[in-house]
Amino acid sequence: MSGNSFGKLFTVTTFGESHGLALGAIIDGCPPGLELSEADLQKDLDRRRPGKNRYETQRKEPDEVQILSGVFEGKTTGTPIGLQIMNTDQRSKDYSNIKDLYRPAHADYTYMQKYGVRDYRGGGRSSARETAMRVAAGAVAKKYLAQECGIQVRAYLSQLGPIKIEQFDWDEVENNAFFCPDANKVPEMEKFMAGLKGNSIGAKISVVATGMIPGLGEPIFDRLDADLAHALMGINAVKGVEIGAGFDSVEQLGTEHRDEITPDGFLSNRAGGVLGGISTGQDLIAHIALKPTSSMHIPGRSVNVQGEPVEVVTKGRHDPCVGIRATPIAEAMMALVLMDHLLRHRGQNGSVQHDIPVIPPQA
Amino acid sequence: MSGNSFGKLFTVTTFGESHGLALGAIIDGCPPGLELSEADLQKDLDRRRPGKNRYETQRKEPDEVQILSGVFEGKTTGTPIGLQIMNTDQRSKDYSNIKDLYRPAHADYTYMQKYGVRDYRGGGRSSARETAMRVAAGAVAKKYLAQECGIQVRAYLSQLGPIKIEQFDWDEVENNAFFCPDANKVPEMEKFMAGLKGNSIGAKISVVATGMIPGLGEPIFDRLDADLAHALMGINAVKGVEIGAGFDSVEQLGTEHRDEITPDGFLSNRAGGVLGGISTGQDLIAHIALKPTSSMHIPGRSVNVQGEPVEVVTKGRHDPCVGIRATPIAEAMMALVLMDHLLRHRGQNGSVQHDIPVIPPQA
Amino acid sequence: MSGNSFGKLFTVTTFGESHGLALGAIIDGCPPGLELSEADLQKDLDRRRPGKNRYETQRKEPDEVQILSGVFEGKTTGTPIGLQIMNTDQRSKDYSNIKDLYRPAHADYTYMQKYGVRDYRGGGRSSARETAMRVAAGAVAKKYLAQECGIQVRAYLSQLGPIKIEQFDWDEVENNAFFCPDANKVPEMEKFMAGLKGNSIGAKISVVATGMIPGLGEPIFDRLDADLAHALMGINAVKGVEIGAGFDSVEQLGTEHRDEITPDGFLSNRAGGVLGGISTGQDLIAHIALKPTSSMHIPGRSVNVQGEPVEVVTKGRHDPCVGIRATPIAEAMMALVLMDHLLRHRGQNGSVQHDIPVIPPQA
Amino acid sequence: MSGNSFGKLFTVTTFGESHGLALGAIIDGCPPGLELSEADLQKDLDRRRPGKNRYETQRKEPDEVQILSGVFEGKTTGTPIGLQIMNTDQRSKDYSNIKDLYRPAHADYTYMQKYGVRDYRGGGRSSARETAMRVAAGAVAKKYLAQECGIQVRAYLSQLGPIKIEQFDWDEVENNAFFCPDANKVPEMEKFMAGLKGNSIGAKISVVATGMIPGLGEPIFDRLDADLAHALMGINAVKGVEIGAGFDSVEQLGTEHRDEITPDGFLSNRAGGVLGGISTGQDLIAHIALKPTSSMHIPGRSVNVQGEPVEVVTKGRHDPCVGIRATPIAEAMMALVLMDHLLRHRGQNGSVQHDIPVIPPQA
Repeated sequence: MSGNSFGKLFTVTTFGESHGLALGAIIDGCPPGLELSEADLQKDLDRRRPGKNRYETQRKEPDEVQILSGVFEGKTTGTPIGLQIMNTDQRSKDYSNIKDLYRPAHADYTYMQKYGVRDYRGGGRSSARETAMRVAAGAVAKKYLAQECGIQVRAYLSQLGPIKIEQFDWDEVENNAFFCPDANKVPEMEKFMAGLKGNSIGAKISVVATGMIPGLGEPIFDRLDADLAHALMGINAVKGVEIGAGFDSVEQLGTEHRDEITPDGFLSNRAGGVLGGISTGQDLIAHIALKPTSSMHIPGRSVNVQGEPVEVVTKGRHDPCVGIRATPIAEAMMALVLMDHLLRHRGQNGSVQHDIPVIPPQA
Repeated sequence: MSGNSFGKLFTVTTFGESHGLALGAIIDGCPPGLELSEADLQKDLDRRRPGKNRYETQRKEPDEVQILSGVFEGKTTGTPIGLQIMNTDQRSKDYSNIKDLYRPAHADYTYMQKYGVRDYRGGGRSSARETAMRVAAGAVAKKYLAQECGIQVRAYLSQLGPIKIEQFDWDEVENNAFFCPDANKVPEMEKFMAGLKGNSIGAKISVVATGMIPGLGEPIFDRLDADLAHALMGINAVKGVEIGAGFDSVEQLGTEHRDEITPDGFLSNRAGGVLGGISTGQDLIAHIALKPTSSMHIPGRSVNVQGEPVEVVTKGRHDPCVGIRATPIAEAMMALVLMDHLLRHRGQNGSVQHDIPVIPPQA
Repeated sequence: MSGNSFGKLFTVTTFGESHGLALGAIIDGCPPGLELSEADLQKDLDRRRPGKNRYETQRKEPDEVQILSGVFEGKTTGTPIGLQIMNTDQRSKDYSNIKDLYRPAHADYTYMQKYGVRDYRGGGRSSARETAMRVAAGAVAKKYLAQECGIQVRAYLSQLGPIKIEQFDWDEVENNAFFCPDANKVPEMEKFMAGLKGNSIGAKISVVATGMIPGLGEPIFDRLDADLAHALMGINAVKGVEIGAGFDSVEQLGTEHRDEITPDGFLSNRAGGVLGGISTGQDLIAHIALKPTSSMHIPGRSVNVQGEPVEVVTKGRHDPCVGIRATPIAEAMMALVLMDHLLRHRGQNGSVQHDIPVIPPQA
Repeated sequence: MSGNSFGKLFTVTTFGESHGLALGAIIDGCPPGLELSEADLQKDLDRRRPGKNRYETQRKEPDEVQILSGVFEGKTTGTPIGLQIMNTDQRSKDYSNIKDLYRPAHADYTYMQKYGVRDYRGGGRSSARETAMRVAAGAVAKKYLAQECGIQVRAYLSQLGPIKIEQFDWDEVENNAFFCPDANKVPEMEKFMAGLKGNSIGAKISVVATGMIPGLGEPIFDRLDADLAHALMGINAVKGVEIGAGFDSVEQLGTEHRDEITPDGFLSNRAGGVLGGISTGQDLIAHIALKPTSSMHIPGRSVNVQGEPVEVVTKGRHDPCVGIRATPIAEAMMALVLMDHLLRHRGQNGSVQHDIPVIPPQA
């Protein structure tokens, strides 16, 4: 595989540049018999879509996804599902200002060093626009996991720059533009964003799968937590991934960290739902750090393709915090990982009959 | 692939349980013509080997690796390299105390739920003993990278429980049992370990590749940073991975985070050497959090395979800090990732002639 | 991967059903810098397209391929190439006659047993229509191989039912509707086809790559000949694959079969250009057997999905010999195999300097 | 993957050269709970082992396989199974006669062109000795398929040079050194072999899986027949692969080829048990052509590594017909393909409930 495919049994391959004709994806390996229509995908695409509020890029595109194959009479057939979103906003603009220079903290320079050429329009393939397809594919996985196994994958913003959430209510997450589960923090966040004055800010997103089943994951390299780290670190702008207690583990004593077990269930979940790379049945919990948006209105120093010094400034409107929109993307990536491991588990252990008592997720 | 293989072009597959007959690995895809002997691997195996000091498990095994194939007249031939370490210390012991119960924070329960059966002797496949083979394979990658590209991969302990390093000297790392680059902190660490009294502690390891070349990595899913996160999160006990600024990015402003560029080089390296999933040529920097050792002398609550409550205590000696020994393992995993991406890059872009000025790693 | 992807470094993934909205493919791993436009693909699509003459199915579709991504300013960028052909002829028809029964020698029954559901319109995913995407992707590989390495991949009809070619002229292949290199046989073939009266007939296609380079292929499982067998046997209706002397080898003596070598070149090519799974630099030669078209006007016995006996007859027009149109498909598949092995070879052995004399392809 | 791995969910990776220290393999993905011991593997290894009769190479090695991991208390645990055979007959010999020249029809030249170096001792990695590991791994698959699904994989010699079998009795196959199911032909074969006088001869092997289940295989690229062609063409010396009617299909009419169906079963099996790449439940049937042994006592022309003309003659004893010993290898490869597809099928369609009548294999 050449870098644009994800998953071994539930495989998603994507194509498309920010300002090309279309974005597309092929989902290969979706089990047959799942009821599926564009509406199932559109909901998450709308959550991810920019331009929903004044803190996000004003690119206005409907991002209407079309299912081109793999669904017949309303159900998946087991054959590959072709997905497509036409780019309606890719009309030719003047890119002469970025064509020949490297925007700091962008992929401009690295693409040139890798390929010797780049589609400079809107960042080309490196644009976060590509994540629309991950969200669409993830929506298929989310539906299957929920319907077949009762697994629900959700995410929320746990920190915006210096502002950390203090209260938690899943119901609040969809009630504000920040995916913030603490309604009290929303005004503070709004004020913070308004004060950025062309600068940008980082964020922290938490992703949780509830209703988990034990036994998912492979022991050595393809561990559930390792595959999750791969999936989440692969989201644009992510610089860190934690499972469960994450970096807090560094200062914890063994007696603090270990999740003791009683017949009534686990007494804590510092493991984040994974032991030895395999799910425990507890909630699967991950946190990711997203860097501040690289495009901003404050000029920065860089060089052009000839190596000469230039000053770079991003015109137009951009998200001052890309982290916010990463919420549905993170859900999608966790769902893709779980879906793949579910199918792999079934493949290898399908006929194994376990007569082993299951420990409840929590006491 | 079924979970025990790593890499696409430079592929490492391992086998072996803690108390089975042997550990082994196959390296498939090593370029021909590399001078290689057991001594090249043994050096890192000795660094990883337990029993070197009083803070580590007293399992005494020479861990002598044997190259069974793929090397002819002192050089690699391009065919698979078979590696093997015989387990000499696997004499039958009494495991009746752990056979039927689940040690908290171990993989005992999850293996049972996944497979319906487990090799309970010393943790079986889930034992950190398996990492010996990763270190052996990583040593091959390290040698190739150093010799062919001048890339050097090294790691060090950056934090032991609450003790953070304050000074940095690569030369100190191999001078103490902690892989600690700050000689002044070593006495403090020794004292801390002595005071654990049967408890255990977490740690933080930092891994760095210097002499990097730009252009390694694939843009979307198989990003260099995503593959690195996969590799490092897959090490036993790791709960978090950061690239460059990592979780500090959450509170950074865009102007703080972006690494500005001048004709003399990058002005900072908060990106950790990766932009858009592709290497910049700056140092590649990652940090990992390791949880405290799960085996400890302080009793804990758990259940047995029948679901009844039991008290668990680990007898014998164990590392109170598994993080320390993870240092050479982390180097190995970063080396395996870089080696694979080097070959992939060559494959796709081998004939591309770049006439593009390279930005120096730092100004 | 889940069955709809081909290749490891030059990876083609396809989607689409015969009567769905569209066919599509993603080519992942195409090297950057290749000049590419729809015209490069359309030529081979037109060669494959049915309806060119009266011996082929009268489905009339332009099969116009569109490149949706991966090409910028006329050149490939190294990012995935999205391809699409809209199905313009998929208007709803009456499929009630085949909906609930299994056509003999078709995939109707096996799809039902595999998936429990099938898109019965025109065979759904099992239709040879899907091969349009292989031809499109193969055209990219063919262009790269020709331009970068001077390798030319071509195929021809070597037998139609009982009629074997006796003379050979590459220039004749494109001059007749049969891809027949022996102009003298064309009238005989036309007469034979006219005499089929609703029945169908098998065929044999030969595929040849000239201008080969030695050293392509992996030794054990991913041999060049094994991968070629996989690629060619995967074409609809193919029942046999030969490399070089093929089944003639069974009755050959060692002294007859071995291709002796002189400083002026190989004295014969019974190996078909592969020894030990690796190319010799001689022409790469394969032959494939294609079964007679399964759809025909002569009624046959079968059962319906309830297991009751039915009589099946195919209405409308169909190719009486699917083998003919397989000619460009076979070229495409050989080109995809060679392209993948070229990139793999470069990846593993890119830096190896061979100072070894090359044996000319023939004396 | 780099060429020495086979299978996606049931993955076999091998290492080892003819005259290296050992041969080995890792089977990754074997379901847990299968009773397994060395004896299960040894039986097929003994069938493959040379030196059983005077028509085969006199290399005398016990080929004793050892299971190093993955089996605990007599059952597989789901973790990788490490296999090893020590080379006991690899004592240093004088290879100066072949070190610097290319034996015609061997892989000597192609390895040099690929790698720039080769282990010339006994053919190194290209020796058929490597197939011992395929046979060992195949034995695991054969046992699982038989025990879990009732699928039996067997092979026989269907032609030796010009001598074709006329009668068929499975019970005779193991009664003679030729794996010949026609006892009457055995004396003729013995006489033919005795008359070869240092020359060698080709052979044809047929492989059959009985007790098949319908629904195995993926539709487009990873078809059951395509994967089988890959597996079988990858056996040393194989030059052709047929499924079912194979090359006879070329001259068949549609009415002859199609396997009509009645409620009592299929009326014929020209498809060889596969339609649209997916198993029908009928016997899975393949035939392979093997070229005459390349090593023979009759001198042939070649060149040395400097490109100068030389005469090559193989000393010592060699199989005059490598095809005979390929019988258990062909079984192993078919078993590996079926095993992999069984696990893949379970993975994708594990929860699908088919309520569709199954057509009996034959009426």
